This record gives sequence, C-alpha cells and structure tokens, in this order.
Amino acid sequence: MKNAIFRCTRCDKAFDANQAHYRCDECKEPLELERIASGKINEGNAMKQNLLGRYSDFFPFLEVDEDLSLGEGFTALVESKSLADKAGIGKLHFKNESQNPTWSFKDRGTYAGVQHAVKLGYDKIGTVSTGNMAPSVAAYGVAAGLETFVLVNKDIPGEKMKPISIYGANLIRVDGDYGQMYYESLKIGKENGIYFLNSDSPLRVEGSKTIAFEICEQLGFVMPGYVVVPTSAGGNIRGIEKGFAEFLACGLIDRIPKMICAQASGCSPIARAYEAGRMEIERLYETETIAHAIENPFPPSGNQTLRMLGYNGGIAVSVNDGQIIEAQKMMAEAGLFGQPASAVPFAALRKLRSAGKISGDSSAVCILTGSGLKYAAALDRHNLKSEECRLESLSGFIAENY
Amino acid sequence: MKNAIFRCTRCDKAFDANQAHYRCDECKEPLELERIASGKINEGNAMKQNLLGRYSDFFPFLEVDEDLSLGEGFTALVESKSLADKAGIGKLHFKNESQNPTWSFKDRGTYAGVQHAVKLGYDKIGTVSTGNMAPSVAAYGVAAGLETFVLVNKDIPGEKMKPISIYGANLIRVDGDYGQMYYESLKIGKENGIYFLNSDSPLRVEGSKTIAFEICEQLGFVMPGYVVVPTSAGGNIRGIEKGFAEFLACGLIDRIPKMICAQASGCSPIARAYEAGRMEIERLYETETIAHAIENPFPPSGNQTLRMLGYNGGIAVSVNDGQIIEAQKMMAEAGLFGQPASAVPFAALRKLRSAGKISGDSSAVCILTGSGLKYAAALDRHNLKSEECRLESLSGFIAENY
Repeated sequence: MKNAIFRCTRCDKAFDANQAHYRCDECKEPLELERIASGKINEGNAMKQNLLGRYSDFFPFLEVDEDLSLGEGFTALVESKSLADKAGIGKLHFKNESQNPTWSFKDRGTYAGVQHAVKLGYDKIGTVSTGNMAPSVAAYGVAAGLETFVLVNKDIPGEKMKPISIYGANLIRVDGDYGQMYYESLKIGKENGIYFLNSDSPLRVEGSKTIAFEICEQLGFVMPGYVVVPTSAGGNIRGIEKGFAEFLACGLIDRIPKMICAQASGCSPIARAYEAGRMEIERLYETETIAHAIENPFPPSGNQTLRMLGYNGGIAVSVNDGQIIEAQKMMAEAGLFGQPASAVPFAALRKLRSAGKISGDSSAVCILTGSGLKYAAALDRHNLKSEECRLESLSGFIAENY
Repeated sequence: MKNAIFRCTRCDKAFDANQAHYRCDECKEPLELERIASGKINEGNAMKQNLLGRYSDFFPFLEVDEDLSLGEGFTALVESKSLADKAGIGKLHFKNESQNPTWSFKDRGTYAGVQHAVKLGYDKIGTVSTGNMAPSVAAYGVAAGLETFVLVNKDIPGEKMKPISIYGANLIRVDGDYGQMYYESLKIGKENGIYFLNSDSPLRVEGSKTIAFEICEQLGFVMPGYVVVPTSAGGNIRGIEKGFAEFLACGLIDRIPKMICAQASGCSPIARAYEAGRMEIERLYETETIAHAIENPFPPSGNQTLRMLGYNGGIAVSVNDGQIIEAQKMMAEAGLFGQPASAVPFAALRKLRSAGKISGDSSAVCILTGSGLKYAAALDRHNLKSEECRLESLSGFIAENY
C-alpha cells in the first residue's frame, strides 16, 4: 500500500493510514484520509469497470482487488418530475442506492474497507450494526474469506437477523448499552486483531465519495443546488461532501452542492444541535422513529457533520414519522420504494420548501439509501387496499369500477 | 412507432406489432418480434445512458422515452472462484439482476412493455403475477401515469401483497383457477382496453435480450459455455437466447452459449418434457417447491422453450428443494443472496457436473433473477445460528471462541 495519512477532522493531527485508526487519540474526533487534489476519471466502458478502478486516482492508497468486489456502485440516478412537483421545486433526482449488492449504499464503503483490511494483513473484520451495515459487512467479509463478526443488539428481531446470518458471519447478540458498543468495538478490535468497519470508519467515508462522483458524471458535471442525505452516524454525508470537494479541487466541477443533513425528529441529535447553533451534539437517551436505519442517539461523526455543514453552507433538518410515511408512499407511487429512512430526504425537502427555506426553482438530489424490502414492517403504517373478485366476473368488475 | 412485425414462434405467421398481440390465433403459441440482423452498440458513458438507448439498434420499433425509465439494467456480472470450485467447473459468473429498481430481472421487460403500451396509446396496463412481475408492473405502470391492474391469486399472503400495493396499483385478488388467469387476462385486456404485460409477452421477451447484451459486453464478447436461467413461463430464457442470437447475427459474438433451462423438481413441466423427449409440455396440477417465483404449472412459453433448446443445443434440468436451499446458502456465503428461484441455476450446474453432463473446464453464467429479501420465509429452512454475550465479556468471549 502506498503512503497515506489519516487526519483528525478537528485538530488535523496525522496518523499513519497503513494501520487501522479510527479516531484522534487527543480530541477523540473521527479521522479522514487526506483530501485528493489532483486526479481524473478513468473513462472507459463503465459496464466492465470496477467502482474503485474507475475512480482509482481518488483511492491512491488502495491497489484495487477486483476479487473482493460484489459489483457495488454504478447505481441509477432517476429523475422524477412528479416528485419535483410534489416538493414544489424545479428539478429532483434520486440516487437509488438500493441497487447495490446488499441493497443499500453501505456496500461502497464496505468494499473500500475490506480492501484496506486485507492490504493491512487482517484476517478478521467486524462491525456494529443492526441496520444496513450488518448484511453488507457480513456479505463482503465472508466472501473475502475473512473471519467476520457482526455485533448486534441482544433484542434484534428474528426478521432482521436472518438476512444477516444467511451470509455466514459470526453474529453476536450483545447484551449491554448499544450506544457504547461502537466505542467498545474499537478496543475489542485492537485486542483481538479485528479490523472494525463501523459507520464512520475512514474507509467507509471513502467509499461514500463514489456516490458524489457518480452523481457528477450522471448530471454531466452540472451541479444540483442541494444533495439531501438521511443521516445517522454521519459517515455517508461526510463521504459525499468529500467526494464533491475532491472533484472540485481537481477541476471536474465548479462548485459543491449544499449538503442537507436529513434526520427523523424522533432521533435528531445533529439537527437539534444545528438548530440551537451548537457545534457539538448531545447524546439522546430516548429515541423513537419508524426510520430505524438512522436511529443513532449519539452519532460518532455528529460533530464533524456540524463542522462540515458550517464550511459547506449546508442545513440540518428533521421530519416526523407521519411526514416520513407520507413521503415513502409518494416515492413508491413514482416507482421508488425505499425503506423509511430513505424517504426522509424527500420529506425534508418538502418541509424546507413549505417553510420557504429553499426556493421553488431549486434542484436537488435525494439519496435513496436502501431498499423498501429491508423493513417491510413499515408497510403496516400505510393504508394499503386491494379488491377481491371471482375470475368469471372479472371483466365486468373492471369495466364497472375503473 | 416504426413498422415492426410479431411472428408466431411455431408457424411464423405475421402480426402487426403496432397492436397488442400475444399469441398466434391459429396455433396458440407465443409471438416474438422479428429478429434483428444488423446493429451495433451505442458506445458511450454507460452511467449516463438509458438501457434501451444503449441498445437502440435492437429496439427499432420503440422511440426510447427516458421519462418512463426507473434506472433498470446495467447490473453487475460477478465472478466467483469459490462457487466455481464448489460446482467443479472452470469459471463461473453471476448476473445479479437483484440490482434492478424493483430488485428483479422483470424491470427490463416491464420498461420495454410500458414503452410499447404508451406508444400504442394505452392508458391502462395490467399483469397476472404473484411473484416478481407484480411489483415491477405496479412500479412502472403507476410511475408512467397509467391505470395499473395487478391480478393476483385470492390466497396471496399479506407479506407478499404489501410490497406490491405500496406502489399504488389496483390490486385485485382473483378467486378462480390461477392457471387460467393468464389466458383470461388477454380477453379481459381486449374487452377493457388494458395492455396486459404478462410473463412471456413479446415486449417482455425483448427486455430480457438486454441481459444477454450486457453479459456479452461484460465478458468482452468472449462467450461462456453455458447460460443458466431459472425458468417459469419461459419468457426470460427466450429473451436471453434471442439477445445472443441477434448479437451473433450482427457479428458482435461468434457463437451462442448453450442455454440451460433450470427448474425446481416440484414444478418442472419443461424439464419433464425435455427428459421424455417430448416437444410439448403437459400441464401439472399439483406442484410444490420453495422456489415459488418459478412455480408455473403450465408455462405459456413452455413449448417454445423446448423448441429453442432444440436449435440451441441446450439442456433442461430440475433440482429439488434440498439442493436449492443448499445452493442458496453457498451463494450467500459468496456474497450473493438470491431468492430460492435464483439459486436454482447454481444447484442445476452442480447436479449436471456431478452427473458428468458438463465438463470440469466449463464456463457458465448463472442468472440471479431476484433479491433474497423478496422471500424471507425461505430463511426458516436454513439452520442459522447466533451467539449471545454480555458487552463486558465480549472481548474475552471472542478471544476464546474464534
């Protein structure tokens, strides 16, 4: 592996990226790889390319191993005129990350992280998650031949557990404070030689850069006004902003879109701090939202997300469960069925537009982070209807009723 | 729409493709669009292209309307060395069709069919399905602003119904002989001005051609020995073969892979006829398999699939539920979690290799037709394990046990 440096997102302290580092040992804030300032896209037949191969100039610290890939990235950017109308804005696209191998955006960062772990000589990998990250790390870790550990909360329902354990990882239900598990896992990793690929690991943030890269290509390098990201730990929105910033530094685009950090009001530590003008989040102790995939009471990259929103000129906003469910249905009726967390950006746009905080001629890209099939229980919150009819009477029934 | 002709797959009788035709009025067999014999790929940045736009020479009868697209196609072709070893063959790829907008291959044909319906002036579209086609037609139909009808069996479980009805189509549970519903729907469509986009509609077959086109590009036009397709109605395997045949006619490839029609032994009308040397399928009345997505007792393109296997030199084969479940697990451990039907091709390859019907240096592509999340109930058939541990003891627990 080539030389590379992690830097603390707050104090800029340098750490050797040839070792697994996650957080600054002084200010305890997350690290990120030094930003790339020169590079270009490897133009070629995208259908035959590997995600990190196409953007290899932006991953100089990895030697791309295609054998570790499961075909992540290259997801669709879908324009919806009907949803732009419903949000009251000029132009609206959805980046459909449910088209990844384990049906969420997590696969991008998992692929980058597994590469890093293998290059560093690890034969064990782990993650703390009950959401989209668990199946993603399970799939990539086991497929790469690594001993793979997925730490979940003791009370995880069977419905969520089985689509993780099918991949064959070591699934451990942990009895204890889930909010502490992220921090504990970093110690456990050190003690047991496990590379922990958590929600805002530096390499996961790197993987998320490719969402921005693809949006740039798909929009012909003409930037939207806003990019709206459902935000939990903060790793994904950090990575997307970093991707735009690197393309800007390389002269590929002429400005960075404003980032909108979209949270559920039942668990919105970042939006709360933003609204109060604070630069540090406060840990929440009671949270409740249908958008479980972003229900993180103490986001490890919460403070860095606030700092990023500051220099980006972005916004943090929260929407309630009723708005989320309504947005999920509207999106499905435009052909885009996301899990509740993935409806949060569209709900957020509608709220911001109603409040006059964004203008009617705005353009935006919402990140649809994961498949609606991932949390089917949310469908019980919708008033879904069907009719019943005998086969012999069907033609008449249709003629009469529709 | 430009002039185009449907031809009967058995008697070659011509039908005007500017009308909705499905089956020959004389020999009752399915129609297909005339095969294309000259054309090329529109090389360009695949990330910015529309599926039918990239291959527009092969869809001369459609004027591509990108507004009707949900970002289908351009799915990954993933090589697995570990699964090639487990099948005992030389080279093995999986075409991961779960990376489509509604997480199955159906979206390709639905996109082509919706285009056709709109060009023909229909404002109503329908389908008969309880599997992958129902959510696909619901998503594309409603998004296109069409009155959309999804006919399902009266006894469909709620678990399967909700991810269809979320898209907002008219969902009708029909009480009657499900095997007859396909044929009845064609009459109902005529009577009510509904374009029925069923399992082997000519335009659905056209959509499936793009699976072959992408495989050719992704393999650098070097053909595998076999392409293995889970087969229900027969529309998908017909379309894939047609795609290869058109690329051959256009000089883009130098041979067509042997097609393997893979069925579940609990419902294998095509494999039964093939093994008995018959050229016509017989309707089954009692079927049972975990692979519900391909549980069609009377495949409307069954006979044409048999004819196609004849001129292609292909094979039909069936595997039992135990083999399917085992294959599903092996695939998941290589990072590829498909619904049970999608594990049938890999199980079929293993069976054919064990029986010496294919050689150890064979190369193959298996079509992974749909996401494992689509039928989570199948996970109960696996012996999935997890451990439990208190957070304080976790590091020691891991050190001791792994």
